[in-house]
Amino acid sequence: MVFWKKLFTANTENVATSEATEFNGEVLKLNGSATTAETEIVFSTDRDIDLYELEELCDLVGWARRPLRKVKKAIQHSFLVVSMWEIKGKRRRLIGFARATSDHAFNATIWDVVVDPRYQNRGLGKAMMKYTIQKLRSADISNITLFADPQVVDFYRRLGFMVDPEGIKGMFWYPD
Amino acid sequence: MVFWKKLFTANTENVATSEATEFNGEVLKLNGSATTAETEIVFSTDRDIDLYELEELCDLVGWARRPLRKVKKAIQHSFLVVSMWEIKGKRRRLIGFARATSDHAFNATIWDVVVDPRYQNRGLGKAMMKYTIQKLRSADISNITLFADPQVVDFYRRLGFMVDPEGIKGMFWYPD
Repeated sequence: MVFWKKLFTANTENVATSEATEFNGEVLKLNGSATTAETEIVFSTDRDIDLYELEELCDLVGWARRPLRKVKKAIQHSFLVVSMWEIKGKRRRLIGFARATSDHAFNATIWDVVVDPRYQNRGLGKAMMKYTIQKLRSADISNITLFADPQVVDFYRRLGFMVDPEGIKGMFWYPD
Repeated sequence: MVFWKKLFTANTENVATSEATEFNGEVLKLNGSATTAETEIVFSTDRDIDLYELEELCDLVGWARRPLRKVKKAIQHSFLVVSMWEIKGKRRRLIGFARATSDHAFNATIWDVVVDPRYQNRGLGKAMMKYTIQKLRSADISNITLFADPQVVDFYRRLGFMVDPEGIKGMFWYPD
């Protein structure tokens, strides 16, 4: 967690660079201490994401491939799409992704959270989720939910997510 | 469960009536055996619902009141809105409601399921949920989810919903 703290307490004033303006969406820039002086980690809500690049990211964590036509539709109809990028000079690499469905009023559900394994265990997944939560909260969404695989329950717990509060159970439908 | 079977195995051919055409949405008509010969139970996906009538229904099950402005927004931005009506001659009464958020591609989450307590324990909630599931499935949504209060977990289980499949946990975010 030392890295995490360093990441966010370091100087974040140097926000405007030529790389950042390549994004159409709102961009939160973190200090470049993540890797080297020339490297920056950037979050974006721009949903104009290269689907092949996203598929490559999902391949890295072993997800089953999904039809890109449907992935495109899901991104279009998500309330929030968050991507995380490593920017090195003029190059940028997609290293994280998450999206949320919502009724735009009360509830949001976060889906498809993925971080490039080569960038895991540095607090970046946590940073991306905090960014996601902050975006949902600023849209006045009070109920943020998700369905967590067993191995990431503790990760989400540390972010303030609770399992089965007041006995509420997450349920999935399967045909009889 | 006897009533339920009767409801669905009885003659459902008499579909077109003047009451049904009052709905703009798609309507599934069940046989009038629910109460009397002149009574019919109708499902609709029309989202043009009187918000005061919906509030009255939610009052009946003791839900905390919510700003109608936000309820309106949530209905507008839901992927699917299902209402259940009792139709007696020219009168119709809202007796059930459910809605779902979705990415229009993979996932849907069902929220705000309510049935008028005076109409409960007759299989109508089950019928409304089956209608909801059918609508989501016909839209090619493969993953139907919900968050169930403890007292309705068995109700959803009987409809084919599973709690925590493969250890997946429903989680809710709360501020630190």
